[in-house]
Formats: sequence, C-alpha cells, structure tokens
Amino acid sequence: MSRYGKRADMVVHEEEPFNAETGLSALAEDVVTPTNAFYVRGHGAVPEIDSATWRLHVHGLVERELVLSLGTLREALREREVTATLQCAGNRRAGLIAVRDIPGEAPWGPGATGTATWTGVALGDVLALAGPRGGHVGFKGADVSSEAKPAQPFGGSIPLEKACRPEVLLAWAMNGEPLPVVHGAPLRVVVPGYIGARSVKWLERIEVRSEPCRGYFQHVVYRLLPEDGIVGPGLGMPLGLVALNADVLSPADGDTVAAGPVEVRGYAFAGGERHVARVDVSADGGACWSQAQLLEDLGPWAWRHWQLTVDMPPGDHEILVRAWDSSAATQPEDEAALWNPKGYVNNARPRIQVRAARG
Amino acid sequence: MSRYGKRADMVVHEEEPFNAETGLSALAEDVVTPTNAFYVRGHGAVPEIDSATWRLHVHGLVERELVLSLGTLREALREREVTATLQCAGNRRAGLIAVRDIPGEAPWGPGATGTATWTGVALGDVLALAGPRGGHVGFKGADVSSEAKPAQPFGGSIPLEKACRPEVLLAWAMNGEPLPVVHGAPLRVVVPGYIGARSVKWLERIEVRSEPCRGYFQHVVYRLLPEDGIVGPGLGMPLGLVALNADVLSPADGDTVAAGPVEVRGYAFAGGERHVARVDVSADGGACWSQAQLLEDLGPWAWRHWQLTVDMPPGDHEILVRAWDSSAATQPEDEAALWNPKGYVNNARPRIQVRAARG
Repeated sequence: MSRYGKRADMVVHEEEPFNAETGLSALAEDVVTPTNAFYVRGHGAVPEIDSATWRLHVHGLVERELVLSLGTLREALREREVTATLQCAGNRRAGLIAVRDIPGEAPWGPGATGTATWTGVALGDVLALAGPRGGHVGFKGADVSSEAKPAQPFGGSIPLEKACRPEVLLAWAMNGEPLPVVHGAPLRVVVPGYIGARSVKWLERIEVRSEPCRGYFQHVVYRLLPEDGIVGPGLGMPLGLVALNADVLSPADGDTVAAGPVEVRGYAFAGGERHVARVDVSADGGACWSQAQLLEDLGPWAWRHWQLTVDMPPGDHEILVRAWDSSAATQPEDEAALWNPKGYVNNARPRIQVRAARG
Repeated sequence: MSRYGKRADMVVHEEEPFNAETGLSALAEDVVTPTNAFYVRGHGAVPEIDSATWRLHVHGLVERELVLSLGTLREALREREVTATLQCAGNRRAGLIAVRDIPGEAPWGPGATGTATWTGVALGDVLALAGPRGGHVGFKGADVSSEAKPAQPFGGSIPLEKACRPEVLLAWAMNGEPLPVVHGAPLRVVVPGYIGARSVKWLERIEVRSEPCRGYFQHVVYRLLPEDGIVGPGLGMPLGLVALNADVLSPADGDTVAAGPVEVRGYAFAGGERHVARVDVSADGGACWSQAQLLEDLGPWAWRHWQLTVDMPPGDHEILVRAWDSSAATQPEDEAALWNPKGYVNNARPRIQVRAARG
C-alpha cells in the first residue's frame, strides 16, 4: 500500500505535492471507482484538520454571514447524495505531450478521472441560509500552494446558477465512508460536470462575489491557451464545464491479447447537462465501426461505461473510439489539433494500439 | 421578390413545400437576419389561419385544460422578447452530400440558419396556468405534411424542464413586426438552443406528456443514424440540443478576392447553455492560426459573428475555421467523419477555397 492508503497500482507522478492517477485496470474494474484507487490531484501539502474545531465561513455578497460547524451542517440541512465523475483538466495530457512536449506539467494518462458517490449537503441549501447577492460563488481550501504566485490557498469559483443546483454538494463522505484526509476531509465541494479543480478540497471559506474568482488557479492557470499563447493573468479561455470525453479502459495501449474475440471496454462522459448517447468502436483504424453497448446508467453526473466484443485476427490493430452526446456533438478526431501549452482538456477520440497473437 | 415576400437572393431548394435558405451575403450583412431573408423550412403547405378564430389548446397531463385566444395570451401574460438563432438540423448538409450523396434530402448549404428577435409570451407562463403533470411538452402545428407516414400535422416535443425556462417563447412577432404567415402566424414556438424542428410553426395544440412525442418527425425523421443505419421508428439517436457550430459568411467558397488584406467574417453558435469562447481562422489550410475578433454579443441564445483580416498573397488559399465553446469543446475536423444517412448536424470545422488575384 502506498501513501494515504492508496492501492499500489496507482501511478504516482509526484510525491510532494502528492499527485497520483488511478491504474487503468482499477478504472476498468467497476463503474464506481474504489476510494483507495481514486486519483489524487494536489497543489500543496495535504492539510490535517481537526473536524471538531473546523468551521465553514460563508461571507461576501450575502445578507447574512455564517460560521458553521460540521455538526450544524448535519443537523440543519437535508443530507444528499450524488454519484458524480470528477475529471482533472489535465486528464489525458500524455496524449498531447506525445505530440509536443509540455515541460513542468504532470503527464496524466487516462486515470486522472474517477466516479464516486458523494454524501453531504447541497451547497444551495447553505447559500440559502446566507442569502446570496452576487453572481459567483468562490471556494477557498486549507491547502496552501507554493506553486502559486504568490503562495496562496487553492481555490476557485462557479456561477451562482450552477452553485444553487441540487447536484452541487459540500461532501463529508465518499463511497459511503467518511471523506479521507487526502480527498478533502472534513468537507469538500463536489461540482458535477465541471473540471475537478472546482471541487475544492479542505473547504474553509465560501465567498459570494460579483465576478469570478481572481485567484492564481482560476485566473492564471486553469485556462485554455492558443498554441503560441503564454500563461498570464486572465489570458486564454477559462476552463469550467467539462465537454464530452471518452477513453478505452481495456485493453491497454500496447497490450498483446489473444487473437479472436476481444472485449473492449471504456467510459464516456458528457458532463451532465448532456448525456452520452452513443459510442462507436473500430478495431481496424476506422475502416469499420460498430456501436458499443452502453452499460449501467448511474445518473446524469456520472460517466457511462461501454463495451463491445470485436474480432481481432492475429496482427496489429488500432482501436478507435468515438462518442456522441445528446446534442449530437462528437469528439474531435485528432489530439495534435488540441495541443495547447498547458496540455488541458484533451477530449480527442481515443486511439490505442493492440497486438493480437495466436494463443 | 419571390414567394412570401422573400428576397430574390434566397436559394430555393423546393417550391412545394416551400424550402429556401438565406443567401450567404444576406447572412453576412448583419447579426440579426432580416425577416425577408430568413430561411424557410417547411414540411407541408403553408396554412392560412384566421387569428381571430384561432385558439391554442393546452391538454394532456395537466391539472386544467385550456383553450386560449391570442387576445387572452396578450392580456393575461407578460410579454417577453428573446434574440435567438434558429438552425435547421439539415444546415450544412451540402458538405456531407459532397462526401457521399444523400438522395431525397434538401441540399441545405450554410443558410438554413438565422437570428431574429422574437416577441410573445413564455411557454412556461402558459404551462403554469394549466399545471403540468408530465415530463414532456409536445407541440402540434396546423401544417399537415404528406411526407409523413401517415400524413399528419408537423410536431415535436421538448422536456418540461426546458419548456419552463424563460427563453422558450410562444411568439407572435419577429424582428418587431407581426409574425409572417410563412414563419408561423399567428403563433409559433421558439425553442432557443434546440434544432429548428422543435420551434413548431402555426401552433395549435400543446400536450403535456409522460414521454417524448412519438410523431413521425421526432420519432422517425430527426434522428442521428450510424453510417449504415436505416430510417425507422425510434432508430438512431434523437436530435434536440444544438452543438457548437461555426461557418464562414464572407468570402464565399470559390470566390476570387483582391490579393492583400482580406476580411474574413462568419458566425459561431454554441447552443445557449454554452457560449462561444474563441474562434481561430487559418488562411493557409491550417499551418498558421490566428484568433478572430468576436463581434456584438446578442445574448446567450444567439450566434456570435466574428471577423479577422488575413493577408492573402496571390494564389489559392484554403480558409479553415475552428471554434471553441465555454466547455472547451471544439468542432470535429472532418466532414467525412460526420456523414450520416440523413445528413444531419454537420458541425465540422468549415473549410472554403478562395483565390486571391492581383487587382
């Protein structure tokens, strides 16, 4: 077992701050990602917080400022649950790095994403106690990041309209157990359908604002730049909503499999406002496509696993996947066209190479 | 002037039913499409309705059935206005036909789309009078289509959640004037962000239902099929929400322009739940890209025009465009990959050929 009780098959990209992605086979195992396999993306040291003395501060453009203990949240507000997929904006960055190097950024593969059942209270119910008077809701965590200029707690904001939706939670439990320290205990935000960065861990402060958060991570870092762009305050396009994405979970890129019928399995995720409508798979580099079977539906905010058995005669095969969402949007074909200086939001059609060998 | 007061530069694909698209230069002229240039998509003869005796019937899964005159709608409910882009699901079908023929379908070019200011009442306010008890809201028009099997009035449905949103109108005016007969007088639905087929013209009946409309057009026709798919009840994926799209409005494909600085202009549209975030233009087939300037913002439900001046030395040039929306989704690169048997929802990156000649 590695740090924080994580499974040994995590792929650790960095020890301090701790950044590790879920192993591919762990993702393929089940539609809900086991907590001890769930990816960890950190920007600073993991804070250890005394939940008894912890308080949530709600302030800013509100009718009434609040200071709330965990006990108050549990007693005053209805407990809610959502099964939601979190996806790091840097998920699948490795595919972009293969096109052109992106120094200084963790080479996340396919495992900076996962799905869990989150339990807590609705952010909207907390905001209703305070009486919000601004268009944006900012979150500040207890984790101080020295990556930031200047060093500061991690944070971000979402529009008030999203913040008040029932799926947005302040969560104290994950997959039915108390939230682990490394996943944000005692309380974290869970914003289904937005990049993982908005699901702020170790939540301490909620600020209702008139404009989006201007902290380092939202205002400088998590933005989509043009190919020749540079990082800087307010440059590029802010990231937020998650667009349609899909990936292959089994077999793995570069695997050798037994020739004959091969079960190909993966996931597709459309963000939530849109749902996954169809997934096609090709085992011959795109000459022929067949529709995959969509597996268990865990609700609008979670990915959908899919599977298809394809026949692979002996030899090398290129498996391609293309997903559609309910707006009939499909994925861009080519990773190279999505390259950007920070390597974010690679949602190109996945493409893997597999060799089929006689048993 | 052609039929129905339309400008002579409409491109007429069919006389009966009347189907005509806006000429490219008319689209390029202004961010709001003049009514006499607005595209017309019909499935049957244009009905002539006596607005004095016309009634709107609201029925189905409702607490109270309604029969409403225009006068009642005007007196009882607040007047609302929305500037919204309508886009036919077959818009840009010509690009797919160029890949592989699609017999029997109108070869819409870039002009089966347009933006107008619509005035009327909110569908949600009408539904509130009736007390909806079902998850879907169906619309039935007065236009009977013999294309349908069996022949039937045109219709469709949207989810109740969308129907109750403030942007969804029952409109009696277009660009500040009474709705023309050819555009659905005396009352039509306007569903911003959905395919044009849901904006049912010559509205007569609203039915609250427990499931989507099973009429010919929604259940059989307006669906996305796989490449080898066939048309049939419930086959393929139902169309509804509009995904990110963009096109070049000036110059036109095949034009010759004066060598030197050339102003390229177009539109981008992200549906409404997402907005247009960025548009890139290349005048050299994708070797170099520059960001276009986004022009007037008419609100979330309308397209955004963009422009960029590019330098074109003498010779042949391929202009490519790629847009991103606020979920960082971008358009698929290749029309060929989007081919489908009905030629719907072509939202590939536009590509046009232009020759620059010395003055």
